[in-house]
Amino acid sequence: MSKRTFGLCVVQVGGIQPEDSRAEVVQRLVSLMRSAHARGADLVVFPELTLTTFMSRYWFDDQETIDSYFETEMPSAETAPLFETAAELGVGFYLGYAELTSDGHHYNTSILVDDTGRITGKYRKIHLPGHSDNKSELAYQHLEKKYFEVGDLGFGVFESQGLKIGMALCNDRRWPEVYRALSLQGAELVLLGYNTPMDVPGWQEEPHTKMESHLLSIRAGAYQNAVWVAAAGKSNTEDGVYMIGGSAIASPSGEIVARAQSDEDEVVFASIDLDYAQSFRDSVFDFSAHRRPEHYSIIIDRIGRGEPLPVPGFNS
Amino acid sequence: MSKRTFGLCVVQVGGIQPEDSRAEVVQRLVSLMRSAHARGADLVVFPELTLTTFMSRYWFDDQETIDSYFETEMPSAETAPLFETAAELGVGFYLGYAELTSDGHHYNTSILVDDTGRITGKYRKIHLPGHSDNKSELAYQHLEKKYFEVGDLGFGVFESQGLKIGMALCNDRRWPEVYRALSLQGAELVLLGYNTPMDVPGWQEEPHTKMESHLLSIRAGAYQNAVWVAAAGKSNTEDGVYMIGGSAIASPSGEIVARAQSDEDEVVFASIDLDYAQSFRDSVFDFSAHRRPEHYSIIIDRIGRGEPLPVPGFNS
Repeated sequence: MSKRTFGLCVVQVGGIQPEDSRAEVVQRLVSLMRSAHARGADLVVFPELTLTTFMSRYWFDDQETIDSYFETEMPSAETAPLFETAAELGVGFYLGYAELTSDGHHYNTSILVDDTGRITGKYRKIHLPGHSDNKSELAYQHLEKKYFEVGDLGFGVFESQGLKIGMALCNDRRWPEVYRALSLQGAELVLLGYNTPMDVPGWQEEPHTKMESHLLSIRAGAYQNAVWVAAAGKSNTEDGVYMIGGSAIASPSGEIVARAQSDEDEVVFASIDLDYAQSFRDSVFDFSAHRRPEHYSIIIDRIGRGEPLPVPGFNS
Repeated sequence: MSKRTFGLCVVQVGGIQPEDSRAEVVQRLVSLMRSAHARGADLVVFPELTLTTFMSRYWFDDQETIDSYFETEMPSAETAPLFETAAELGVGFYLGYAELTSDGHHYNTSILVDDTGRITGKYRKIHLPGHSDNKSELAYQHLEKKYFEVGDLGFGVFESQGLKIGMALCNDRRWPEVYRALSLQGAELVLLGYNTPMDVPGWQEEPHTKMESHLLSIRAGAYQNAVWVAAAGKSNTEDGVYMIGGSAIASPSGEIVARAQSDEDEVVFASIDLDYAQSFRDSVFDFSAHRRPEHYSIIIDRIGRGEPLPVPGFNS
């Protein structure tokens, strides 16, 4: 049996504080990239919105303050060291950041950069969680729907470093449509960064299930689509809010093959066999042989929940 | 907070041998239904193709032999005791069986029966695994694609015992489209039966992952759709083939709340709070607020894997 090994790293980042400058953050990421390279990484996955603290927990009215969390160019003078180090070491990377376009659009974005430092793919987050209104009664908010527009690039798959790579961001990982859209384009690897607080007041599942539902989501996405999934999160506290960490790599078997051991900055490495997925694509998840899209149309036809459809002899 | 409790049972069946008569099997199921009722069951879930041994492991040429595994009426004289016991005890049930229709169609079917013994729903399996050709070199085969037609009733949700209940069968549980189609119709509970051998020669995932990928699939379906999932399997050996068992109930949190402890006949009970799902439907899985079907069309447009779609600035 063939074996096509690839050095995959998820880099957990133990919190970015409001006072941390971009230059400090980039130096920290460069140092982590060097550690990853020393472990054998061909590709390094950084978290979502990596360059600043998670702005969506604050209500800001002032557009200048809001825009100060966004990048207007990539690379910029401040982020160039990441690209230079990638080229120097021959290591690709995935980076999540807040993107402000030249025509004034705001996106929660990730880019894929290859081992020569060239941008080979871009994704703008589609499943924005939280709310857009000011819930000032909460200890902290979750305002992604205020600060970001829904991504306009779809779920793309990009050729980079000889692989077909799909990208997603944070909340996307809980939606099975995401992995399916990527695997139907032949993705071999799905990369995602996240910012997941242990507790979102009044909003999400119970704290005690938070780590399991994260791991469950990436494991199910990997298994049901015969892809590798690499998920890098922030961890520890950001401005007093605890982030779950649990950065991990999931195999097409649905198993976690590497996982952060701490809630600090941590390089999580796995040498993966890309061809391992093929046995799943040829059998239980041979989509051409088994999928039945003629029975899936409700997935597109409806956004929210509605009444049961008629079934001959019942419901009619 | 409201609490709407319901007594849910999955009944694991420790193998049906080729020599077991339908009358013997039905008596065994009736006895298990009585045990479930004594535990507090309002509804009992039996496995897939419960009334006979799993015929799809054998190659048969003779149509009369094939049809001997099928039911031509439901209830029949042989299965009537199940319906009578349901009405007597006030317990509903789900039963998987092979259905031969009056106009000659063969389906892998499940029915839903309410607590008065009335059939309130029917499902015919859509994701048929395995193959239709004679792989006589295998120790045993997986011929669902030979013996059954793809179901023609869609993924239905039925009102029964005051609940909205969706049904699926075995391999369906590995396909996220199934739970999504049911939850978009307001399903609160998804019932499924299965026959999963530990090892399918030359076909499926590795034996050591078999139990985990089963539990992963039902947990992910429950979590990502804010539904309860109840899955009843055969276990132990059928005609020398070991079936994984692992009958279980998964909560909308993605947690397994009850699971078989043995590979024998076993009643697995949970008193579930149906309203527990609402907090998920109102937050992380508020479909109306968060789903983006305009980006899901590839799920319908493609059956199998294909080339990456164009992304502006990339792949084009």
